[in-house]
Amino acid sequence: MSIAEEIQELKSAIRDVPDFPKKGIIFKDITTLLKQPGLFSKAIGLMAEPFKDAPIDVVVGIDARGFILGGAIAQLFDVGFVPVRKKGKLPAEVREVTYSLEYGEDTVAIHKDAFEEHKNVLIVDDLLATGGTLQGSCELIELVGGNILGISSLIELSFLEARPQFEKYNFHSVIQY
Amino acid sequence: MSIAEEIQELKSAIRDVPDFPKKGIIFKDITTLLKQPGLFSKAIGLMAEPFKDAPIDVVVGIDARGFILGGAIAQLFDVGFVPVRKKGKLPAEVREVTYSLEYGEDTVAIHKDAFEEHKNVLIVDDLLATGGTLQGSCELIELVGGNILGISSLIELSFLEARPQFEKYNFHSVIQY
Repeated sequence: MSIAEEIQELKSAIRDVPDFPKKGIIFKDITTLLKQPGLFSKAIGLMAEPFKDAPIDVVVGIDARGFILGGAIAQLFDVGFVPVRKKGKLPAEVREVTYSLEYGEDTVAIHKDAFEEHKNVLIVDDLLATGGTLQGSCELIELVGGNILGISSLIELSFLEARPQFEKYNFHSVIQY
Repeated sequence: MSIAEEIQELKSAIRDVPDFPKKGIIFKDITTLLKQPGLFSKAIGLMAEPFKDAPIDVVVGIDARGFILGGAIAQLFDVGFVPVRKKGKLPAEVREVTYSLEYGEDTVAIHKDAFEEHKNVLIVDDLLATGGTLQGSCELIELVGGNILGISSLIELSFLEARPQFEKYNFHSVIQY
Protein backbone atom coordinates (compact mmCIF):
# COMPACT_ATOMS: atom_id res chain seq x y z
CA MET A 1 0.00 0.00 0.00
CA SER A 2 1.40 3.42 -0.94
CA ILE A 3 1.54 6.24 1.62
CA ALA A 4 -1.25 8.04 -0.29
CA GLU A 5 -3.41 4.90 0.01
CA GLU A 6 -2.59 4.57 3.73
CA ILE A 7 -3.63 8.18 4.30
CA GLN A 8 -6.86 7.58 2.36
CA GLU A 9 -7.54 4.49 4.49
CA LEU A 10 -7.12 6.56 7.67
CA LYS A 11 -9.29 9.36 6.28
CA SER A 12 -12.07 6.89 5.44
CA ALA A 13 -12.04 5.67 9.05
CA ILE A 14 -12.74 9.14 10.49
CA ARG A 15 -16.41 9.83 11.24
CA ASP A 16 -18.16 13.18 10.66
CA VAL A 17 -20.49 14.05 13.55
CA PRO A 18 -22.71 17.04 12.70
CA ASP A 19 -23.57 19.69 15.32
CA PHE A 20 -20.94 18.67 17.91
CA PRO A 21 -19.91 20.27 20.22
CA LYS A 22 -22.40 22.90 18.97
CA LYS A 23 -24.81 23.50 16.11
CA GLY A 24 -23.17 24.09 12.72
CA ILE A 25 -19.86 22.39 13.53
CA ILE A 26 -19.00 19.10 11.84
CA PHE A 27 -16.81 17.26 14.34
CA LYS A 28 -14.04 15.00 13.04
CA ASP A 29 -14.40 11.92 15.27
CA ILE A 30 -11.16 9.92 15.30
CA THR A 31 -12.41 7.25 17.74
CA THR A 32 -13.62 5.19 14.76
CA LEU A 33 -10.01 5.18 13.50
CA LEU A 34 -8.24 4.65 16.84
CA LYS A 35 -10.30 1.60 17.79
CA GLN A 36 -9.16 -0.42 14.78
CA PRO A 37 -6.08 -2.59 15.38
CA GLY A 38 -3.65 -1.80 12.58
CA LEU A 39 -5.03 1.67 11.85
CA PHE A 40 -3.96 3.04 15.24
CA SER A 41 -0.31 2.12 14.71
CA LYS A 42 -0.50 3.22 11.05
CA ALA A 43 -1.63 6.70 12.16
CA ILE A 44 1.12 6.86 14.79
CA GLY A 45 3.74 5.75 12.27
CA LEU A 46 2.76 8.46 9.78
CA MET A 47 2.65 11.13 12.49
CA ALA A 48 6.11 10.15 13.72
CA GLU A 49 7.86 9.54 10.38
CA PRO A 50 9.27 13.07 9.70
CA PHE A 51 10.76 13.25 13.21
CA LYS A 52 12.30 9.80 13.51
CA ASP A 53 15.89 11.11 13.26
CA ALA A 54 15.33 14.27 15.35
CA PRO A 55 17.03 14.37 18.81
CA ILE A 56 13.74 14.45 20.74
CA ASP A 57 13.83 14.15 24.56
CA VAL A 58 10.11 14.43 25.29
CA VAL A 59 6.75 14.42 23.55
CA VAL A 60 4.33 17.11 24.73
CA GLY A 61 0.72 15.93 24.35
CA ILE A 62 -2.17 18.37 24.47
CA ASP A 63 -5.18 17.53 26.70
CA ALA A 64 -6.98 15.19 25.99
CA ARG A 65 -6.87 13.46 22.56
CA GLY A 66 -3.23 14.56 22.23
CA PHE A 67 -2.52 12.36 25.25
CA ILE A 68 -3.56 9.20 23.36
CA LEU A 69 -1.47 9.97 20.27
CA GLY A 70 1.38 11.57 22.23
CA GLY A 71 1.66 8.63 24.65
CA ALA A 72 1.94 6.29 21.67
CA ILE A 73 4.62 8.41 19.95
CA ALA A 74 6.61 8.72 23.22
CA GLN A 75 6.52 4.91 23.42
CA LEU A 76 7.57 4.55 19.76
CA PHE A 77 10.53 6.93 20.18
CA ASP A 78 11.39 5.72 23.71
CA VAL A 79 11.33 9.28 25.09
CA GLY A 80 9.53 11.04 27.96
CA PHE A 81 6.05 12.56 27.98
CA VAL A 82 4.90 15.97 29.28
CA PRO A 83 1.22 17.01 29.41
CA VAL A 84 -0.21 20.43 28.56
CA ARG A 85 -3.54 20.62 30.40
CA LYS A 86 -6.52 22.86 30.91
CA LYS A 87 -6.22 25.20 33.90
CA GLY A 88 -6.54 23.59 37.34
CA LYS A 89 -5.68 20.01 36.36
CA LEU A 90 -1.92 19.89 37.05
CA PRO A 91 -1.02 19.44 40.74
CA ALA A 92 2.33 21.23 41.15
CA GLU A 93 3.58 24.74 40.30
CA VAL A 94 2.49 25.76 36.79
CA ARG A 95 2.80 28.49 34.20
CA GLU A 96 -0.38 29.41 32.36
CA VAL A 97 -1.22 31.09 29.06
CA THR A 98 -4.67 32.45 28.21
CA TYR A 99 -5.69 32.65 24.58
CA SER A 100 -8.72 33.85 22.61
CA LEU A 101 -11.36 31.57 21.14
CA GLU A 102 -14.10 32.45 18.65
CA TYR A 103 -16.27 33.21 21.67
CA GLY A 104 -14.47 33.94 24.94
CA GLU A 105 -11.07 32.59 26.02
CA ASP A 106 -9.36 29.53 27.44
CA THR A 107 -6.28 28.82 29.56
CA VAL A 108 -3.66 26.09 29.22
CA ALA A 109 -1.04 25.15 31.81
CA ILE A 110 2.27 23.29 32.07
CA HIS A 111 4.41 22.33 35.05
CA LYS A 112 7.16 24.89 35.65
CA ASP A 113 9.75 22.09 36.01
CA ALA A 114 8.64 20.13 32.93
CA PHE A 115 11.93 20.53 31.03
CA GLU A 116 14.63 20.90 33.67
CA GLU A 117 16.90 18.33 32.09
CA HIS A 118 15.22 17.16 28.91
CA LYS A 119 14.48 20.07 26.61
CA ASN A 120 13.98 18.95 23.01
CA VAL A 121 10.25 18.75 22.38
CA LEU A 122 7.90 17.24 19.80
CA ILE A 123 4.34 18.54 20.25
CA VAL A 124 1.53 16.09 19.43
CA ASP A 125 -2.16 16.83 18.99
CA ASP A 126 -5.09 15.34 17.11
CA LEU A 127 -6.35 18.33 15.10
CA LEU A 128 -5.23 21.77 13.98
CA ALA A 129 -8.19 24.13 13.54
CA THR A 130 -7.68 27.85 14.18
CA GLY A 131 -4.54 27.09 16.21
CA GLY A 132 -5.39 28.91 19.46
CA THR A 133 -4.62 26.00 21.79
CA LEU A 134 -1.51 25.08 19.84
CA GLN A 135 -0.20 28.66 19.87
CA GLY A 136 -0.83 28.84 23.62
CA SER A 137 1.00 25.53 24.07
CA CYS A 138 4.02 26.71 22.07
CA GLU A 139 4.25 29.85 24.24
CA LEU A 140 3.98 27.78 27.42
CA ILE A 141 6.68 25.33 26.35
CA GLU A 142 9.12 28.12 25.53
CA LEU A 143 8.21 29.97 28.74
CA VAL A 144 9.44 27.02 30.85
CA GLY A 145 12.56 26.37 28.77
CA GLY A 146 11.47 23.81 26.19
CA ASN A 147 13.00 23.76 22.70
CA ILE A 148 10.34 22.94 20.08
CA LEU A 149 11.82 20.68 17.37
CA GLY A 150 8.52 19.85 15.70
CA ILE A 151 4.74 19.63 15.81
CA SER A 152 2.76 16.61 14.61
CA SER A 153 -1.02 16.73 14.21
CA LEU A 154 -3.10 13.84 12.86
CA ILE A 155 -5.57 16.18 11.14
CA GLU A 156 -5.32 19.70 9.71
CA LEU A 157 -8.34 21.79 8.71
CA SER A 158 -6.42 23.52 5.91
CA PHE A 159 -9.28 25.89 5.00
CA LEU A 160 -8.79 27.65 8.36
CA GLU A 161 -5.25 28.56 7.28
CA ALA A 162 -3.60 28.27 10.69
CA ARG A 163 -0.49 26.48 9.41
CA PRO A 164 1.65 29.53 8.50
CA GLN A 165 2.06 30.56 12.15
CA PHE A 166 3.56 27.12 12.94
CA GLU A 167 5.86 26.61 9.96
CA LYS A 168 8.88 27.77 12.00
CA TYR A 169 8.28 24.78 14.30
CA ASN A 170 8.37 22.12 11.53
CA PHE A 171 4.62 21.60 11.49
CA HIS A 172 3.46 18.24 10.08
CA SER A 173 -0.03 16.81 9.55
CA VAL A 174 -1.08 13.44 8.12
CA ILE A 175 -4.66 14.18 6.95
CA GLN A 176 -5.84 17.49 5.48
CA TYR A 177 -9.39 18.79 4.90
CA MET B 1 18.56 -4.04 37.42
CA SER B 2 16.03 -6.43 39.03
CA ILE B 3 12.28 -5.87 38.63
CA ALA B 4 12.10 -4.84 42.32
CA GLU B 5 14.79 -2.22 41.69
CA GLU B 6 13.00 -0.97 38.56
CA ILE B 7 9.78 -0.57 40.54
CA GLN B 8 11.67 1.28 43.28
CA GLU B 9 13.20 3.59 40.64
CA LEU B 10 9.72 4.39 39.29
CA LYS B 11 8.34 4.92 42.79
CA SER B 12 11.16 7.36 43.60
CA ALA B 13 10.26 9.39 40.51
CA ILE B 14 6.65 9.98 41.64
CA ARG B 15 6.07 13.28 43.45
CA ASP B 16 3.76 13.75 46.43
CA VAL B 17 1.74 16.97 46.15
CA PRO B 18 -0.07 17.78 49.42
CA ASP B 19 -3.60 19.26 49.42
CA PHE B 20 -4.40 18.57 45.75
CA PRO B 21 -7.08 18.54 44.42
CA LYS B 22 -8.37 19.45 47.90
CA LYS B 23 -7.09 19.90 51.44
CA GLY B 24 -5.97 16.72 53.17
CA ILE B 25 -5.33 14.69 50.00
CA ILE B 26 -1.75 13.81 49.06
CA PHE B 27 -1.78 13.62 45.26
CA LYS B 28 0.51 11.11 43.54
CA ASP B 29 1.96 13.18 40.68
CA ILE B 30 3.26 10.89 37.91
CA THR B 31 4.34 13.73 35.58
CA THR B 32 7.80 13.69 37.23
CA LEU B 33 8.09 10.04 36.15
CA LEU B 34 6.55 10.34 32.67
CA LYS B 35 8.83 13.18 31.59
CA GLN B 36 12.01 11.14 32.02
CA PRO B 37 13.17 9.31 28.88
CA GLY B 38 13.75 5.70 29.89
CA LEU B 39 11.37 5.76 32.86
CA PHE B 40 8.30 6.26 30.68
CA SER B 41 8.96 3.13 28.64
CA LYS B 42 10.00 1.22 31.77
CA ALA B 43 6.62 2.00 33.37
CA ILE B 44 4.79 0.98 30.19
CA GLY B 45 6.78 -2.25 29.96
CA LEU B 46 5.94 -3.24 33.54
CA MET B 47 2.26 -2.35 33.09
CA ALA B 48 2.05 -4.43 29.90
CA GLU B 49 4.16 -7.45 30.93
CA PRO B 50 1.40 -9.72 32.43
CA PHE B 51 -0.78 -9.25 29.33
CA LYS B 52 1.80 -9.67 26.57
CA ASP B 53 0.43 -13.06 25.49
CA ALA B 54 -3.26 -12.21 25.93
CA PRO B 55 -5.37 -11.93 22.73
CA ILE B 56 -6.12 -8.23 23.21
CA ASP B 57 -7.92 -6.33 20.41
CA VAL B 58 -8.13 -2.89 22.03
CA VAL B 59 -6.84 -0.94 25.01
CA VAL B 60 -9.46 1.12 26.83
CA GLY B 61 -7.89 4.21 28.42
CA ILE B 62 -9.69 6.17 31.11
CA ASP B 63 -9.83 9.99 30.77
CA ALA B 64 -7.31 11.64 31.06
CA ARG B 65 -4.04 10.19 32.45
CA GLY B 66 -5.18 6.73 31.30
CA PHE B 67 -5.01 8.12 27.75
CA ILE B 68 -1.25 8.71 28.02
CA LEU B 69 -0.47 5.25 29.40
CA GLY B 70 -3.17 3.51 27.33
CA GLY B 71 -2.01 5.10 24.07
CA ALA B 72 1.52 3.86 24.77
CA ILE B 73 0.36 0.31 25.58
CA ALA B 74 -1.86 0.21 22.46
CA GLN B 75 1.24 1.18 20.46
CA LEU B 76 3.38 -1.45 22.21
CA PHE B 77 0.84 -4.23 21.53
CA ASP B 78 -0.12 -2.93 18.06
CA VAL B 79 -3.83 -2.94 18.93
CA GLY B 80 -6.64 -0.35 18.83
CA PHE B 81 -7.56 2.25 21.43
CA VAL B 82 -10.99 3.17 22.86
CA PRO B 83 -11.54 6.09 25.26
CA VAL B 84 -13.81 6.15 28.31
CA ARG B 85 -14.58 9.83 28.94
CA LYS B 86 -16.41 12.11 31.29
CA LYS B 87 -20.01 12.87 30.27
CA GLY B 88 -20.43 15.21 27.28
CA LYS B 89 -16.99 14.73 25.71
CA LEU B 90 -17.68 11.95 23.18
CA PRO B 91 -19.36 13.14 19.96
CA ALA B 92 -21.45 10.16 18.78
CA GLU B 93 -24.07 7.94 20.45
CA VAL B 94 -22.94 6.89 23.93
CA ARG B 95 -23.89 4.76 26.91
CA GLU B 96 -23.34 6.32 30.32
CA VAL B 97 -22.91 5.00 33.86
CA THR B 98 -23.22 7.20 36.95
CA TYR B 99 -21.33 6.20 40.10
CA SER B 100 -20.98 7.51 43.65
CA LEU B 101 -17.99 9.47 44.91
CA GLU B 102 -17.12 10.35 48.50
CA TYR B 103 -19.12 13.54 47.96
CA GLY B 104 -21.66 13.49 45.14
CA GLU B 105 -21.46 11.47 41.93
CA ASP B 106 -19.84 11.36 38.51
CA THR B 107 -20.72 9.98 35.07
CA VAL B 108 -18.52 8.19 32.54
CA ALA B 109 -19.39 7.49 28.91
CA ILE B 110 -18.33 5.23 26.04
CA HIS B 111 -19.34 5.13 22.38
CA LYS B 112 -22.10 2.59 21.78
CA ASP B 113 -20.23 1.18 18.76
CA ALA B 114 -16.82 0.98 20.47
CA PHE B 115 -16.50 -2.82 20.19
CA GLU B 116 -18.51 -3.81 17.14
CA GLU B 117 -15.77 -6.00 15.72
CA HIS B 118 -12.90 -5.94 18.20
CA LYS B 119 -14.05 -7.08 21.62
CA ASN B 120 -11.14 -8.24 23.78
CA VAL B 121 -10.23 -5.38 26.11
CA LEU B 122 -7.33 -4.38 28.35
CA ILE B 123 -8.30 -1.44 30.61
CA VAL B 124 -5.49 1.02 31.43
CA ASP B 125 -5.48 3.73 34.07
CA ASP B 126 -2.90 5.57 36.17
CA LEU B 127 -4.20 4.99 39.69
CA LEU B 128 -6.62 2.76 41.58
CA ALA B 129 -8.04 4.53 44.66
CA THR B 130 -11.57 3.65 45.80
CA GLY B 131 -12.34 2.20 42.37
CA GLY B 132 -15.50 4.17 41.52
CA THR B 133 -14.39 5.29 38.07
CA LEU B 134 -12.92 1.89 37.27
CA GLN B 135 -16.08 0.06 38.35
CA GLY B 136 -18.16 2.43 36.21
CA SER B 137 -15.82 1.82 33.28
CA CYS B 138 -16.08 -1.98 33.62
CA GLU B 139 -19.90 -1.74 33.60
CA LEU B 140 -19.81 0.52 30.53
CA ILE B 141 -17.48 -1.77 28.60
CA GLU B 142 -19.65 -4.82 29.26
CA LEU B 143 -22.81 -2.81 28.48
CA VAL B 144 -21.58 -2.18 24.91
CA GLY B 145 -20.27 -5.72 24.34
CA GLY B 146 -16.64 -5.56 25.39
CA ASN B 147 -14.92 -8.58 26.95
CA ILE B 148 -12.54 -7.49 29.73
CA LEU B 149 -9.37 -9.62 29.66
CA GLY B 150 -7.41 -7.51 32.14
CA ILE B 151 -6.88 -4.23 33.97
CA SER B 152 -3.49 -2.54 34.32
CA SER B 153 -2.96 0.41 36.67
CA LEU B 154 0.41 2.08 37.25
CA ILE B 155 -0.38 2.81 40.92
CA GLU B 156 -2.61 1.13 43.51
CA LEU B 157 -3.50 2.72 46.85
CA SER B 158 -3.66 -0.66 48.61
CA PHE B 159 -4.86 0.77 51.93
CA LEU B 160 -8.18 1.71 50.26
CA GLU B 161 -8.76 -2.01 49.57
CA ALA B 162 -10.50 -1.62 46.21
CA ARG B 163 -8.65 -4.49 44.54
CA PRO B 164 -10.98 -7.39 45.54
CA GLN B 165 -13.82 -6.11 43.36
CA PHE B 166 -11.52 -6.25 40.29
CA GLU B 167 -9.74 -9.59 40.84
CA LYS B 168 -12.14 -11.33 38.42
CA TYR B 169 -10.78 -9.06 35.67
CA ASN B 170 -7.09 -9.96 36.20
CA PHE B 171 -6.22 -6.72 37.96
CA HIS B 172 -2.51 -5.74 37.86
CA SER B 173 -0.67 -2.78 39.36
CA VAL B 174 3.04 -1.90 39.21
CA ILE B 175 3.43 0.34 42.28
CA GLN B 176 1.56 -0.08 45.57
CA TYR B 177 1.17 2.32 48.52
